[in-house]
Amino acid sequence: MAESVREPAGRPDGEAMCPYRLVLEHVTSRWGVLVLIRLLERPHRFSELRRAIGEIRQVSEKMLTQTLQTLERDGFVHRVAQPVIPPRVDYSLTELGREAAEQVRALALWTERRMGEVEQAREAYDEARA
Amino acid sequence: MAESVREPAGRPDGEAMCPYRLVLEHVTSRWGVLVLIRLLERPHRFSELRRAIGEIRQVSEKMLTQTLQTLERDGFVHRVAQPVIPPRVDYSLTELGREAAEQVRALALWTERRMGEVEQAREAYDEARA
Repeated sequence: MAESVREPAGRPDGEAMCPYRLVLEHVTSRWGVLVLIRLLERPHRFSELRRAIGEIRQVSEKMLTQTLQTLERDGFVHRVAQPVIPPRVDYSLTELGREAAEQVRALALWTERRMGEVEQAREAYDEARA
Repeated sequence: MAESVREPAGRPDGEAMCPYRLVLEHVTSRWGVLVLIRLLERPHRFSELRRAIGEIRQVSEKMLTQTLQTLERDGFVHRVAQPVIPPRVDYSLTELGREAAEQVRALALWTERRMGEVEQAREAYDEARA
């Protein structure tokens, strides 16, 4: 979303005042949601995760890597490089990640279930203004 | 988030495949979250809402107007222009909006409560890579 915020002089920065905002963005980002929901089922390897998410929407290797790194850094995702040949990396949810994922999944499912009502509301809104 | 998605030829557009994605973005957007949480308390006039949100982070009139229009169009927010002088517009949640707001508030509160753990995870992550 475009920003047009001017912080009054001497006032603490808004982002610093609500640091949780950024975490909320991480877990509700397009790929964040899909990664969390998939990992809620079971741990996945990188390639499995990419394939599973690709069923919904193609994700580039770079975007998926970035998403996983962000979620790992926040403490939601656990990354284990298995000492095998060929190399294999497993991703799973931490306890904190599981709690986040459950809420995000509930919200995503609710939104999906209510899309019919949202679409009706949009039609009514647009018609009233046509 | 930057996009680097190439849809395979002949495949339906990913956004069309998950239209709820956009709704999820509306209710979890920076201002969307704050508007929903405020309206969960009680209906607000525009100016009241702007002031209340401003306690967390300054919001421009334009951004707040856009956020309210988006949420109204999706059927989450109800807008009533009172036939009084001076003109007065009240915003409240619809039933659908209340359900969304309750989940979003729960997620925001959870995130806020867990920020300590998130920050610890980040420090550990950054140290391991320093």
